[in-house]
Amino acid sequence: MQSEGNKYISGTLIAQELGLEPIQVRKDLAITGIIGKPKKGYPVTTLIDAIERFLGWNSVQDVVLVGAGNLGSALMGHREFRLHGLHIVAAFDKNPEKAGTTIHGVKVLPMDTIEAEIRTLGVQAAILTIHSDDAQAAADILVKAGILGIWNFTAVKLRVPETVAVQTEDLSSGYAMLCVTMQSYRDGDDGTAP
Amino acid sequence: MQSEGNKYISGTLIAQELGLEPIQVRKDLAITGIIGKPKKGYPVTTLIDAIERFLGWNSVQDVVLVGAGNLGSALMGHREFRLHGLHIVAAFDKNPEKAGTTIHGVKVLPMDTIEAEIRTLGVQAAILTIHSDDAQAAADILVKAGILGIWNFTAVKLRVPETVAVQTEDLSSGYAMLCVTMQSYRDGDDGTAP
Repeated sequence: MQSEGNKYISGTLIAQELGLEPIQVRKDLAITGIIGKPKKGYPVTTLIDAIERFLGWNSVQDVVLVGAGNLGSALMGHREFRLHGLHIVAAFDKNPEKAGTTIHGVKVLPMDTIEAEIRTLGVQAAILTIHSDDAQAAADILVKAGILGIWNFTAVKLRVPETVAVQTEDLSSGYAMLCVTMQSYRDGDDGTAP
Repeated sequence: MQSEGNKYISGTLIAQELGLEPIQVRKDLAITGIIGKPKKGYPVTTLIDAIERFLGWNSVQDVVLVGAGNLGSALMGHREFRLHGLHIVAAFDKNPEKAGTTIHGVKVLPMDTIEAEIRTLGVQAAILTIHSDDAQAAADILVKAGILGIWNFTAVKLRVPETVAVQTEDLSSGYAMLCVTMQSYRDGDDGTAP
């Protein structure tokens, strides 16, 4: 809406675009503190600011990345993250040949320095793109080093203390959803059991 | 459970591990056709087979990838997908310098050949890892070429016919969830409005 030069957007239109109920959209947006104008809706720029402030995206969050493989490297090069204040300040890898290299401007450090580096850097969040077999051990080290949020790209359901936030992006689950939906469209049903 | 040598797993344990209700787990698994044994639960190997057959992961699905950038290259190198029968047979990129190269064993072809190639290859699904600005135009071409499923890694809500399945992996949404959960843990509440 902003790039199209629209000054206002209605809660009804947002709901329609996202497939949600208008009442839910209004309730959710109210949490950010924004107030819509009757008949006009929400001022677009103010709404974006309010959501970004709510998410903390108006300030920079330094994070570390664990596992500088294919996916880790791709995330280091993902420019869109900068728009959300996400700044990868260092990466760690157990492969000694990777340590010392720089990927998309991010230095790769040896895995055995991670605990000390996290404390020195003072970061609170980490991106986990390590092999699934090593995921829980890496998470344990992150928690010990004081990390409060883990963005988990492994297939492992991490066990962490209740004070640590984990957001899991399970690519296999996403692919499973695509397969099931395609199958149900082929069968001409909605994919659920009778 | 399989790698730990367990022969059976109960619906209650699965529910506990996934944070779901046991009745929901039993209903969902029943869709795959598996029958649990009283007091023992589900035979682990048979259960895995039943789920994989339900998802179509027991046979190979050929897919194309559109946008051989950082994320696209990472997905081409993601070995875990092979376990699910996902086989990337070709990639397409509008950058003429990339066309003709091979990334993780996958040939990169020029973008303007995509429609003809999809028909020749007979693929039904595509992975979209193109820049968000080009996403809708690429989706339109995919649909025209007969693609029935799009695994969408862009931030764009794609408009496609009702017969085409779209599974969107929105990394920014995932990061937003992590930010909000971390914030709510810091504040000591559960992140929802009063």
